[in-house]
Amino acid sequence: MNYQKILKEIEQEITPLFGQGKVANYIPALAEVNPRQFAMSITLLDGTQYGIGNIDTNFSIQSISKVFSLTLALEAHGSKLYEHVGVEPSGDPFNSLIQLEYENGIPRNPFINAGAIVVVDALLNGNSSSEMTFEKILAFVRKIANDDSITIDPEVADSEMTNGYRNLALASLMKSFQNLYHHPITVLQTYFKQCAITMTTAQLSRAMLYLTNAGTDPISNEKLTASHRAKRINAIMLTCGHYDASGDFAFNVGLPGKSGVGGGIVAIVPGVMGICVYAPELNSSGNSLIGTKALELFTTKTGLSIF
Amino acid sequence: MNYQKILKEIEQEITPLFGQGKVANYIPALAEVNPRQFAMSITLLDGTQYGIGNIDTNFSIQSISKVFSLTLALEAHGSKLYEHVGVEPSGDPFNSLIQLEYENGIPRNPFINAGAIVVVDALLNGNSSSEMTFEKILAFVRKIANDDSITIDPEVADSEMTNGYRNLALASLMKSFQNLYHHPITVLQTYFKQCAITMTTAQLSRAMLYLTNAGTDPISNEKLTASHRAKRINAIMLTCGHYDASGDFAFNVGLPGKSGVGGGIVAIVPGVMGICVYAPELNSSGNSLIGTKALELFTTKTGLSIF
Amino acid sequence: MNYQKILKEIEQEITPLFGQGKVANYIPALAEVNPRQFAMSITLLDGTQYGIGNIDTNFSIQSISKVFSLTLALEAHGSKLYEHVGVEPSGDPFNSLIQLEYENGIPRNPFINAGAIVVVDALLNGNSSSEMTFEKILAFVRKIANDDSITIDPEVADSEMTNGYRNLALASLMKSFQNLYHHPITVLQTYFKQCAITMTTAQLSRAMLYLTNAGTDPISNEKLTASHRAKRINAIMLTCGHYDASGDFAFNVGLPGKSGVGGGIVAIVPGVMGICVYAPELNSSGNSLIGTKALELFTTKTGLSIF
Amino acid sequence: MNYQKILKEIEQEITPLFGQGKVANYIPALAEVNPRQFAMSITLLDGTQYGIGNIDTNFSIQSISKVFSLTLALEAHGSKLYEHVGVEPSGDPFNSLIQLEYENGIPRNPFINAGAIVVVDALLNGNSSSEMTFEKILAFVRKIANDDSITIDPEVADSEMTNGYRNLALASLMKSFQNLYHHPITVLQTYFKQCAITMTTAQLSRAMLYLTNAGTDPISNEKLTASHRAKRINAIMLTCGHYDASGDFAFNVGLPGKSGVGGGIVAIVPGVMGICVYAPELNSSGNSLIGTKALELFTTKTGLSIF
Repeated sequence: MNYQKILKEIEQEITPLFGQGKVANYIPALAEVNPRQFAMSITLLDGTQYGIGNIDTNFSIQSISKVFSLTLALEAHGSKLYEHVGVEPSGDPFNSLIQLEYENGIPRNPFINAGAIVVVDALLNGNSSSEMTFEKILAFVRKIANDDSITIDPEVADSEMTNGYRNLALASLMKSFQNLYHHPITVLQTYFKQCAITMTTAQLSRAMLYLTNAGTDPISNEKLTASHRAKRINAIMLTCGHYDASGDFAFNVGLPGKSGVGGGIVAIVPGVMGICVYAPELNSSGNSLIGTKALELFTTKTGLSIF
Repeated sequence: MNYQKILKEIEQEITPLFGQGKVANYIPALAEVNPRQFAMSITLLDGTQYGIGNIDTNFSIQSISKVFSLTLALEAHGSKLYEHVGVEPSGDPFNSLIQLEYENGIPRNPFINAGAIVVVDALLNGNSSSEMTFEKILAFVRKIANDDSITIDPEVADSEMTNGYRNLALASLMKSFQNLYHHPITVLQTYFKQCAITMTTAQLSRAMLYLTNAGTDPISNEKLTASHRAKRINAIMLTCGHYDASGDFAFNVGLPGKSGVGGGIVAIVPGVMGICVYAPELNSSGNSLIGTKALELFTTKTGLSIF
Repeated sequence: MNYQKILKEIEQEITPLFGQGKVANYIPALAEVNPRQFAMSITLLDGTQYGIGNIDTNFSIQSISKVFSLTLALEAHGSKLYEHVGVEPSGDPFNSLIQLEYENGIPRNPFINAGAIVVVDALLNGNSSSEMTFEKILAFVRKIANDDSITIDPEVADSEMTNGYRNLALASLMKSFQNLYHHPITVLQTYFKQCAITMTTAQLSRAMLYLTNAGTDPISNEKLTASHRAKRINAIMLTCGHYDASGDFAFNVGLPGKSGVGGGIVAIVPGVMGICVYAPELNSSGNSLIGTKALELFTTKTGLSIF
Repeated sequence: MNYQKILKEIEQEITPLFGQGKVANYIPALAEVNPRQFAMSITLLDGTQYGIGNIDTNFSIQSISKVFSLTLALEAHGSKLYEHVGVEPSGDPFNSLIQLEYENGIPRNPFINAGAIVVVDALLNGNSSSEMTFEKILAFVRKIANDDSITIDPEVADSEMTNGYRNLALASLMKSFQNLYHHPITVLQTYFKQCAITMTTAQLSRAMLYLTNAGTDPISNEKLTASHRAKRINAIMLTCGHYDASGDFAFNVGLPGKSGVGGGIVAIVPGVMGICVYAPELNSSGNSLIGTKALELFTTKTGLSIF
């Protein structure tokens, strides 16, 4: 398939959509991003990359990071992790504290904030500090993206910490239900650093290859997670990856994926490729408006959908 | 592939699981079913059938009927239906009335009870009576199963009506939000009849072929729904088809499917086959315990999963 | 005290408030009421009456009727009634279905709609029909008001039945929790008739005397309820009598009272008098705006508050 | 009236109730209290005191402190305080986070934890530190109890801070709705100190005199709060003073009062006396079981109820 041509077409077709979404504005560091950006990268199993737009522009990966910390926590704790966080879909704006209280502090899945906080709490076990735990997450991200230059935007991390009172409420509620081992502030410091990692679409499409390939990096041949865990992560991406638009994404795109409020979306075509798209304007569900459309165009044009 | 041999293996492997679940007991007509039953049928696109166990035993299809009424309502109303019911996953025991009130009477998806009631309400539009609407649903089911002998168990329908106060609460709440056109009692009479249709696994695996084949019956070549609607229904089955175990089903089985408290589960392998399994003992999520396991064994043995 | 002079002052002071509230509009029969009406009556223990404004105008007593059916149900069932309905305050718009589901179908108190429905259900026990039960309620109201001409507005009762889907949801939910003996429709038919009784402020202020006088009608000397039950009803009126403005009413007026969306409010000064005020424009909490103000002026001018 | 004789009778009548309740056990410092204690004190407007039992034993005043900080916050901010906290009753175990999220971070009243946290936040305004704010609260308590020896139990305060994750969740949620000015941790440090003040029943019955006397200390003649504010505080104590048993307390005792999980209850007879009872075993609603019974016996024996 002529992927480069398809990417070029997509770039043209999404252009009229600029201005229809809104950049995340809950922290200044994100609000100041230039809204008229678009980038899309794909990485095949052999490492071949195609891309269009600002594919080397760094952006805040935000909730995309939840995929990587989940991988690490499953490696560290196995299925014991599911005693602390479920795998079932859940409307996000709705569920928040109400569902969490109703269900005794056990979050529905690892991709809503409460669930991702539990995952980070699990990663803190056995480490001496928040800093050390974050270093492990960062090391993993560098490895799967095959790029040691990846780092965080400290301004974003600080800003999240200063404004993240709803996350503090979620973490404190779970702690009151004894579903966190560590102090809520400690967990959030780690969590906010993970969200503040900055990457490019080229790096992220590369980083998804291990999930495309049943848990093993197809280039280095390193086994990063067991095959059944990769499958589980992909299933969770499909059912829970896009907040309250996960059902729409499953239908319109038909690929396992995960979005972040920074404007990025990663997705995989099992056995074929990792994908990342970036466009910071969000739709009303908090997902990249243009990014979602670009992925929909991609699966329509290529026929690469799981349905 | 030697499907008959695989079905035979599955039948042996699930035998030790008898007695681990519980037959639905909220109405007498279901509670009296013999728990130690198992049947599994597959129908290929050319009509070839394989089966094991009591494949000609009739059972109450219950929520499996939601798939068929949704198909009809989408044909009748198109995407306008989505003004009255969403397509996003939702924890079922949790959501019920709380979520419905919180979200102003718009149910999350057509497979939770509230959503299925809205779908039936839509089908009542343009018909003169509950009876006439039910006849349309039944005619559709007979057509896709290619069997005019299919009918309902009137005792089950009456029993549901006498005991269905939570469904009456759901319908009345939606009516108070003006999200039902017809009187709650009228809608429920139709809804309970649809749930009381009885079918065999052989019939149901045949009936799923149109969803396996992009909306067109592969044998009669009749187009029953548009391709994009079949895809939408399949996506909803994958994300919402199994109550609070939809995420687990997506992972363990990896196929679009829909379960009913009567003990049946239907599933499809896109482009390949329709499947139905029946075993009346339910797990704690209200899905057939043995049926879920049988489907998991089937995708493991055949490699036919969408992930 | 010169009560007539005080009532005259109040009538003048509330005049500027006309037009600040809104007449109940959820059913046509109430929406068409003339908004610019005011009446206020007091009845002393010896039967002496004072009044100002349209004291002989009939209006729909609506939720005021809950006081009378509660009295009858407590006589019939004693404290067993509290197994089905609590005595604790509860925000009304909020609680509705969410709280009812959370608390397994047991309403918080007899003055929220769910609680009043349970009370009517209890009254249906031992009677052969909804009609017979309603006749008992009406006979009680006629006795305590000493006026056999009191009747209902059938148009209001019918209109409530046609539009009362939220009440049907509440009743059905309680029935699903087995907290109703009778069918939700039967209970609501009785409940809506009770709400559709029409009375004047003169009649209602007379009707409250038994609660002013520890359960015994001070004129006929008939004991209508035990002293401790009268005290309990008064305590519930104080803490729960005015929906989500019960706390404000307790502070501003400082008397046990009960309002109805028809625009009436009854109140008592223990040992001294029954009071009723009528002005159909409601404030945002659903209580008579001018009626509440008139009662506040009354306790300020007379010093007759329980605090 | 022979108050001493009445107190003696009450002491005898409550003796059989020892062992029926449970001492608060959510923090070690409270769990270790001797459960078989009872004390009851009354202070008349002229300062005359009567008492029975361990009237000079210090105990943790806990939520009783909410009455005092509310008085100070109303003096400092007047009715502006009501923009941040309501005055309506609310079931406590239920409401917690669910109601708070539903109502955008505005707590129902100042006596549920969320409301009391808002009150402390208001007191922090204009002060340089948590310590300075607490000193003001303590100084006020010492003044109204006329006893400069009153202090806190630092072990209790520390223990609350280490275990108070649900309160941290409440505070963080309100902060996320911008209904707190200060950091949740800062507010809680002050709040937990206030709850850890220890007093005797003799001191607390004396401390309530200003609320008994329309805001003015009847002995020092110092005006501590406006008359209408004292009335408001009393109304809130009546409707919201005892968690989910406020309705029962209003009925059984019939006096404005406030309980704390330390086992104390304060109450007032307007114009007559301040009362405090202490018995650490709690009933299922979290109020002193014996204390509630003692107050009920007191109003029955003296006829001093507001109903």
